[in-house]
Amino acid sequence: MKCVFIMGTAGSGKSTLVLSLVDRISDPEVSVATLNLDPGVRWLPYPPDVDIRDYVDYDRLAEAYRLGPNGALIASVDASVSHIGEIKGELEKLGADYVLVDTPGQMELFAYRSAGKAIASALSEGDFSTVFLADSIFLNRPSDFVSILLLSYSIQTRFQAPLVGCISKSDLLPAEVYEKAKLWITDPEYLRDDFFSERGGLDVEFSGRVLDALVEIGVLGEFIFTSSNTGEGLDDLYAQLQRIHSGGENQ
Amino acid sequence: MKCVFIMGTAGSGKSTLVLSLVDRISDPEVSVATLNLDPGVRWLPYPPDVDIRDYVDYDRLAEAYRLGPNGALIASVDASVSHIGEIKGELEKLGADYVLVDTPGQMELFAYRSAGKAIASALSEGDFSTVFLADSIFLNRPSDFVSILLLSYSIQTRFQAPLVGCISKSDLLPAEVYEKAKLWITDPEYLRDDFFSERGGLDVEFSGRVLDALVEIGVLGEFIFTSSNTGEGLDDLYAQLQRIHSGGENQ
Repeated sequence: MKCVFIMGTAGSGKSTLVLSLVDRISDPEVSVATLNLDPGVRWLPYPPDVDIRDYVDYDRLAEAYRLGPNGALIASVDASVSHIGEIKGELEKLGADYVLVDTPGQMELFAYRSAGKAIASALSEGDFSTVFLADSIFLNRPSDFVSILLLSYSIQTRFQAPLVGCISKSDLLPAEVYEKAKLWITDPEYLRDDFFSERGGLDVEFSGRVLDALVEIGVLGEFIFTSSNTGEGLDDLYAQLQRIHSGGENQ
Repeated sequence: MKCVFIMGTAGSGKSTLVLSLVDRISDPEVSVATLNLDPGVRWLPYPPDVDIRDYVDYDRLAEAYRLGPNGALIASVDASVSHIGEIKGELEKLGADYVLVDTPGQMELFAYRSAGKAIASALSEGDFSTVFLADSIFLNRPSDFVSILLLSYSIQTRFQAPLVGCISKSDLLPAEVYEKAKLWITDPEYLRDDFFSERGGLDVEFSGRVLDALVEIGVLGEFIFTSSNTGEGLDDLYAQLQRIHSGGENQ
């Protein structure tokens, strides 16, 4: 059971990517199951095979403990941990090759609370990867892209698992932004130049040193541009997941 | 009007820090106002001087657009932008030296959506700083601390403003964790050693390169340990904010 945890900030398009990836991966040789881990979501673009909402009731928790939406979301995600055994049982019955895991809408509830790491390791027994999804809106300014790069490194460091970085909604990018961002990813020197020319103030000095260090050791340039509308990048993404999980069979 | 935006992942203790900082800063010479920017919060440990909830009604938005908690939180924070003029007017009437801004419970709603940057720049006219608050639970493992460091760099890069990194709830740390973490912050070589001995797998190789680069350029070691219970670190934090905003008067 190869578990792929799809993470990304609120509104980045995680659930839509799950739908697109199911379509892309499915063939007679490879089976895919989906798991929704967002207890607070009202509507999903795909019917999840296994659903945390069958175990954790956001509305009941909110009411019973008189919690606001922040507190109720935290409580719901934390409560998910105690149902991982049952969820794992459901998934094992399905016997799928890949499990695509749709994580809570607000990324930090999964990424930066103990529940997320506990769930990932209990569910997958170590065979898991992460997809970090960032909205293409972050490509409009070099500083925003650097910020997102750092966020993805933060996630990768926390989960200590392979991470595939993806940009979502690539079809929404104006052509000139798309081309410029592709350059950043192909040759980080472009990113460095654009970053430093964005603003000359003292404020960027610190981030500039961080960026310089990252460019120096060559860790940039691994984001895949994806679009659920045009299908861009889905083959690349699937190929990367295959490489991570199985050394590249079924490509 | 010196605006200090308190950010941190859900549950890190932002609102409690606001309360403690008000107590710490207030004296006859320096006046402080508080602004709550979390439309979804039900209860606050301090009475905010200005409150986004007077302008944006989370429950009404959720009902009117039939949104789940994720969607309604996003919509509420996004809707806040159009009220910044009025909020700024309220704050200007108060005429405080410092405005402590309590940001939404889920950090990413403010930090990684356009609304956050738009609000910060409109409200402060550029004279703003950020406090990044991380729960002391992240000090239990070196990889979690490195992850949080990267998250703070990500925030700093996105806002391009001075950032003061703080650990919350330092009084909850076991003595040996506290001492070890203090070493990490005093001399990043300790952090590097502990990070690499935490796990030897291939998974940490990437993060290790990132960490090496950060240690190399000397950007670690600026987190202040704070506790709202014992008052630890509040003087340091206030001194840093003064340095940032006014070159150190009133220390």
